[in-house]
Amino acid sequence: MPEKTIDTLCIGNAIVDVLAHAEDAFLEEHGLTKGAMTLIDSDRAERLYAMMGPGIECSGGSAGNTAAGIAMMGGRAGYIGKVRDDQLGRVFAHDIRAAGVQFDTPMAADGTATARCLILVTPDAQRTMNTFLGACVELGPADIDPAQIERSRIMYIEGYLWDPQEAKKAIRKAIDIARDAATLVSLTLSDPFCVGRYREEFHELVEHKVDILFANEEEIKSLYQTDDFETAARRVADHCEYAALTRSEKGSVVLWKGERHDIPAAPVDRVVDTTGAGDQYAAGFLHAFSCGAGPRQCGEAASLAAAEVISHFGARPETDMKALIAPVIGVPA
Amino acid sequence: MPEKTIDTLCIGNAIVDVLAHAEDAFLEEHGLTKGAMTLIDSDRAERLYAMMGPGIECSGGSAGNTAAGIAMMGGRAGYIGKVRDDQLGRVFAHDIRAAGVQFDTPMAADGTATARCLILVTPDAQRTMNTFLGACVELGPADIDPAQIERSRIMYIEGYLWDPQEAKKAIRKAIDIARDAATLVSLTLSDPFCVGRYREEFHELVEHKVDILFANEEEIKSLYQTDDFETAARRVADHCEYAALTRSEKGSVVLWKGERHDIPAAPVDRVVDTTGAGDQYAAGFLHAFSCGAGPRQCGEAASLAAAEVISHFGARPETDMKALIAPVIGVPA
Repeated sequence: MPEKTIDTLCIGNAIVDVLAHAEDAFLEEHGLTKGAMTLIDSDRAERLYAMMGPGIECSGGSAGNTAAGIAMMGGRAGYIGKVRDDQLGRVFAHDIRAAGVQFDTPMAADGTATARCLILVTPDAQRTMNTFLGACVELGPADIDPAQIERSRIMYIEGYLWDPQEAKKAIRKAIDIARDAATLVSLTLSDPFCVGRYREEFHELVEHKVDILFANEEEIKSLYQTDDFETAARRVADHCEYAALTRSEKGSVVLWKGERHDIPAAPVDRVVDTTGAGDQYAAGFLHAFSCGAGPRQCGEAASLAAAEVISHFGARPETDMKALIAPVIGVPA
Repeated sequence: MPEKTIDTLCIGNAIVDVLAHAEDAFLEEHGLTKGAMTLIDSDRAERLYAMMGPGIECSGGSAGNTAAGIAMMGGRAGYIGKVRDDQLGRVFAHDIRAAGVQFDTPMAADGTATARCLILVTPDAQRTMNTFLGACVELGPADIDPAQIERSRIMYIEGYLWDPQEAKKAIRKAIDIARDAATLVSLTLSDPFCVGRYREEFHELVEHKVDILFANEEEIKSLYQTDDFETAARRVADHCEYAALTRSEKGSVVLWKGERHDIPAAPVDRVVDTTGAGDQYAAGFLHAFSCGAGPRQCGEAASLAAAEVISHFGARPETDMKALIAPVIGVPA
C-alpha cells in the first residue's frame, strides 16, 4: 500500500465564480430559483451576464473551494477538475495552486470555455447560482490517476459531478480505486435539486460506497424523501460511518459511528454572502478528521470555517485559517 | 454647441485588477515598491502572478473606477479605454456598462491581451500595483470621438495615460477638442513616479490646459519638486481654477477659484484596502461638481466616496452610492 501523502483529494467541477449583488426583484424577473444551483447553457449565461450588475471574479467550484480551504488550514490537499486553457482557466489553476493545493489535471486545449457560475447575492446574503459547465464536460476517466487516489487518505467528491456526462464515469472509476486502496470516500450531496436529479444513484452510493457524507437539511430530506429532518438523520446514520448534516444558523449534526453530536453554529458578526458555506464546513471537518480529531472537534472546526467564509464576499477563506482552526483541533498553527 | 448629455467623460487605461493579500516580506523579496504603480512586461507579469497568493479579479483602471463611481452616484458618465476582445476584456466591458457608464470604445480584435494590474494588499491595507499595460497600448486618436467630448461637461483624464505611446496623441487631440467645446478638462496626476516620468509635460498641462486637478500630497510635491506641501498647494492655486489635493487620513485641500478649503477625511471603521481611494475621491468630487455643489460639498462627497472604497477589498464601490452621496450635495437619491 503506498504511503498516504495527500490528506484529502477533492474532485469537482472547476468553476470561476462571477459574484454580483442583486435585488430579489431581479431573481423574480429572470425566473431564478433563490438559493439553488441551476445549470444554464452558454446562451443563457451570456444573456444573464449582460443583465447582471458589476461583478467580481474568484475561483470557485464546490470541491475546489474545499480543497483550497483544507490547504489553507495546513492540510495536504489535492484537486482534480477540468478547465480550458483560457484566461479564466489560468486564473482557476493559479488560485488553487497558490492556496497550496496539488492540481495537475491537464487543461483542455480547445473546446468550450472554462466553466463560470453567475452568483447573485441578495440583500439577505443568500446566494443564487447559475452554472455554465463549459470545460467541465471534458473531465473523464483519463483524468483519474489511480496512484494519486491510492496516496490519499480521503477522496472527496461533489454531487454536482453527476451533471457532466463523462465525469460520472471518472467518479465510478475513482471510487473503485479508493475502496481498493483503503482511501475513505466522502461525498457532498451539493444541492437539493441535484439530489432530485440523481436520487437513485446517490442513494446507492450513500448506502454502499460513502464513508463520510456531507449534506444540508434540504438535501438529506430530499435524499430520503421525507420532510422530517430527524427521520433523515436516523436513516443516514444506518448507512454511513460518518455524516455531517448542516442546518444553517441551527448548527450541524455530526453522526459518528452511531453516535449523534449536535454542534452549534459559530457566531458571525454580519452574514455577507453565504456562498461556499457548505464547502468550508466540509474543509474544516475533513481537515480536523485528518488530524485525528473527534466528532465534536470536527464539527466545531467545520462551523468555524463556515462562519469565516460567510462573513465576506466570495467562496474561499480570506483569513489565516491555520490560526483559526488549529486551536480547535489542538495542533500547532 | 451640442447639448451636454454626459456629465463626465473619463479616459484611461482599461485594466482588470487581480487583488491578493501579501506580507511586506513578499514585496521586499520581489523588489516591489510599496504604495506605487510599477509598469511590468508580460514575462514579469507571468512570473509575479505565479508567486502571488490566490486572487480575486475585478475591473479596475483609475479613470474606469472613477467613471463607474460617478455612474453609481447617479451621474451621467462615459468612458474611453482599450481592452482586447478576450475573457478579461469582456469582463471589463460588462462591469463598466453594468455600473451605468456609456462605453463604446471598440475592443482590439487581436494583439496583446487585456491589461492586468497585479495588486498586492499588505496587512496595513496599503496597495502595491504592478501593471501589465497589454491592450492599452492600442488606444489611439481614432478612439476619440469629437462629438462625444463636445457633449461632455467635464473630460477627466489620468496621468497614467502618458505611459502607453499612442494614448498621448489621443489625449492631446481630446484636450484640443474639449477646450474648443467649453468642456472642462480635469486631470489626475495618478502616481508620484508617473509624475517623475512626465513632469515637464504635466507641468505644461497643469499650467495651461487643466481646469480641475486631482493629486495626492506626494504627487503634487513631485510636480513642483518641493518637499513642502503648502508651497505646492500655493503654486497649483495659481495654475488651476479648481484643484483637490488629497492627504490620506489628514483629509484633503480643495482650492477653488483662489480660495482654500480644508476638508476632513470621512471616518472609516476599518481600512481594508486603499485601492481606488483617489479614484473614488475624484468620482465624488466630479459628481458633486456636476450637480452644482460648492467647494465644501464637493470635498465632502469626495471624502465619503473614498471612505466607502477603502473599507472593502477592490477599487469600485459596493454600497448604494446614490444614497450615500445625495444627502451631502442636496439632490434626491
